[in-house]
Amino acid sequence: KINGERLWDSLMEMAKIGPGVAGGNNRQTLTDEDGEGRALFQKWCEAAGCTMGLDTMGNMFARREGTDPEALPVYVGSHLDTQPTGGKYDGILGVLGGLEVIRSMNDLGIRTRHPVVVTNWTNEEGTRFAPAMLASGVFAGVHTEDWAYARTDAEGKTFGDELKRIGWRGEEPVGARRMKAFFELHIEQGPILEAEGKDIGVVTHGQGLWWLQVTLTGKDAHTGSTPMNMRVNAGLGMARIIELVHTIAMDNQPGAVGAVGQANVYPNSRNVIPGRAVFTIDFRSPDQAKLDGMRARLEAEAPKIAAELGLGIEIEAVGHFDPVTFDEGCVSAIRNAAERLGYSHMNIISGAGHDACWINKLYPTAMVMCPCVDGLSHNEAEEISPEWAAAGANVLFHAVVETAEI
Amino acid sequence: KINGERLWDSLMEMAKIGPGVAGGNNRQTLTDEDGEGRALFQKWCEAAGCTMGLDTMGNMFARREGTDPEALPVYVGSHLDTQPTGGKYDGILGVLGGLEVIRSMNDLGIRTRHPVVVTNWTNEEGTRFAPAMLASGVFAGVHTEDWAYARTDAEGKTFGDELKRIGWRGEEPVGARRMKAFFELHIEQGPILEAEGKDIGVVTHGQGLWWLQVTLTGKDAHTGSTPMNMRVNAGLGMARIIELVHTIAMDNQPGAVGAVGQANVYPNSRNVIPGRAVFTIDFRSPDQAKLDGMRARLEAEAPKIAAELGLGIEIEAVGHFDPVTFDEGCVSAIRNAAERLGYSHMNIISGAGHDACWINKLYPTAMVMCPCVDGLSHNEAEEISPEWAAAGANVLFHAVVETAEI
Ligand SMILES: NC(=O)NCCC(=O)O
Ligand SMILES: NC(=O)NCCC(=O)O
Repeated sequence: KINGERLWDSLMEMAKIGPGVAGGNNRQTLTDEDGEGRALFQKWCEAAGCTMGLDTMGNMFARREGTDPEALPVYVGSHLDTQPTGGKYDGILGVLGGLEVIRSMNDLGIRTRHPVVVTNWTNEEGTRFAPAMLASGVFAGVHTEDWAYARTDAEGKTFGDELKRIGWRGEEPVGARRMKAFFELHIEQGPILEAEGKDIGVVTHGQGLWWLQVTLTGKDAHTGSTPMNMRVNAGLGMARIIELVHTIAMDNQPGAVGAVGQANVYPNSRNVIPGRAVFTIDFRSPDQAKLDGMRARLEAEAPKIAAELGLGIEIEAVGHFDPVTFDEGCVSAIRNAAERLGYSHMNIISGAGHDACWINKLYPTAMVMCPCVDGLSHNEAEEISPEWAAAGANVLFHAVVETAEI
Repeated sequence: KINGERLWDSLMEMAKIGPGVAGGNNRQTLTDEDGEGRALFQKWCEAAGCTMGLDTMGNMFARREGTDPEALPVYVGSHLDTQPTGGKYDGILGVLGGLEVIRSMNDLGIRTRHPVVVTNWTNEEGTRFAPAMLASGVFAGVHTEDWAYARTDAEGKTFGDELKRIGWRGEEPVGARRMKAFFELHIEQGPILEAEGKDIGVVTHGQGLWWLQVTLTGKDAHTGSTPMNMRVNAGLGMARIIELVHTIAMDNQPGAVGAVGQANVYPNSRNVIPGRAVFTIDFRSPDQAKLDGMRARLEAEAPKIAAELGLGIEIEAVGHFDPVTFDEGCVSAIRNAAERLGYSHMNIISGAGHDACWINKLYPTAMVMCPCVDGLSHNEAEEISPEWAAAGANVLFHAVVETAEI
């Protein structure tokens, strides 16, 4: 078994970097705080006897050698970056859980045939630079590196410049590594495991996603002296499309979600009718037809809403992945480990996107989930218990050691 | 007649300070640019032989002496501050039109019994520090000075601190002045005069206003892994209330307007269901019963929308004035001047709020309006012709000189 106390201490130590305003974290990707978090992780990995690799997308790879120099490594990991008002576990548990696997192997003197590598993927959250899972996506060949470098944040800074600025752009070509398997431990970020009273979620599938960004163009005008029939109100158009997104998701129940997360009107002044609105849509479903159907309906109906109000509309797809089916062998390794360790478990579909979803395109991949309180995530109040964390890391430990072969 | 070319040159000169991004201006109240604009105005006033007074709210008073030291001054003026994406004329025309009245009196050697004072009222726009017409409101005793000083902008800076910082807080107690009359020249900011082909609007009334600020409190949560029925989506609540505001305004046609100008969701991240939304509502009508009825209906129905979604709601009134009836004598002076000068004219109700609306509470007040292209204002593309500006200033000149008695 892994050392649950040490794992918890490391989680709490990492959470001191980029503290949030309400007990959580703001350690967004490619900020100075992200750099600090990376340095701490590197220090811990080196203390555990690993060598650190760093690729051109800033992905970190801490390697513990195996006994067979020819054997492909088994990878574990997740991400250290957070939402602007994020929790202490989303991503972090998967990285530090991976480190705990290596530390426990050291404690127990376990030698595996295959090397084990703990990974920190850059910009998983996607909130500063869309899309999410950007660097694992480049690793998997879904995006080109040039395209990724050109992603901009709200201030117009590019991913490439910011990666260089914080000093974490490596020399190793991204995607050059081959893997025997990839395992990711993550908190559920939803309410199911807690509601069902299960210790462990065996992740068999992941939802697919469409991220759309909508720009409505109307006409700035005075709220007082402009008659109602002369208004071209981009804020009203945004309101109607937010309602449409909700309606589309509800019409696809069960097994679909939809919401608008970012919403901005311009010039955002009390006495100016908004002449422009820019907002983002997030549709997800584990069912490919539903997923694509939601996008298609939005693209058919939103322009009608805009036209009725005299608004110009642009809809851009800024993020996408298809529903995922994880590797049967890796999923079994997770389920068997949970069974062997005596944890209650159930199959589960990941509601969120994860780096594992992209790596699954290349190599056998699976995920293990632990519950989180009230299903809450992407919220500073995100919480898990040390016992849940330890159970997840134990399952990860057993699956990894089994796959890496003693 | 006034010198239309000189007036236009001064407008263009002032517009160089705090240029916008699209041909207009960003010279928001109590910014460094506001300070620069004030300094230029003071220089021009002193060159025209005026002495400058400055009160504790930063209101500026450029005085041209009359022949009777006991006679109450006739005041003219408006404001030099602009919207974040504002035009070159909204407010400025009234201040520089007043200055042109004095310059023309100098040119023509006109001596009046009553002094004439040109005023620049601080923070008319109200977009940086709500409410609008803040300093004329304190002058009129509608707000206390302490309350005004404590108004904050989006960054939490206070009006009082910013006024001191830019160096334009005077010693003269606000509201200490008495007036024979107050005249304000302003662009219409609406489409009526242009549509009717009139040179001059004789402003008989002003619309009343309610500004409300709504805060909805839900729960930040993951857009992917939170089931639809567990969401407490503040952004969806905001969308429904934006629609409600529009419906209320449409149900009160004709003679009412309503819109949401500022809209912010938090944390404003693509993959976070907004846990909080803060937005502003602007309702106006020249009819007191309609005006208050719109507010009452919003306050009755918005909480039901919030309750249906499980959201907390707070509604705060952040700005208000009742419909205004301007002084009959002053209105006649405007109408007679237009008639005498041979300008086409019509009675008009001001759709926007103006400093004149507050001063009208204390002293005989009226306004003169000139058309603006497409009725567009609170937009950098706001435009008027030099002829329209000159016609408005000529009417102002005649009304002022008549009231100040040669
Ligand atoms: N796990 C997680 O929150 N990933 C961010 C990408 C997403 O929104 O699903
Ligand atoms: N004239 C003008 O735009 N004033 C600002 C206050 C208002 O919104 O009416």
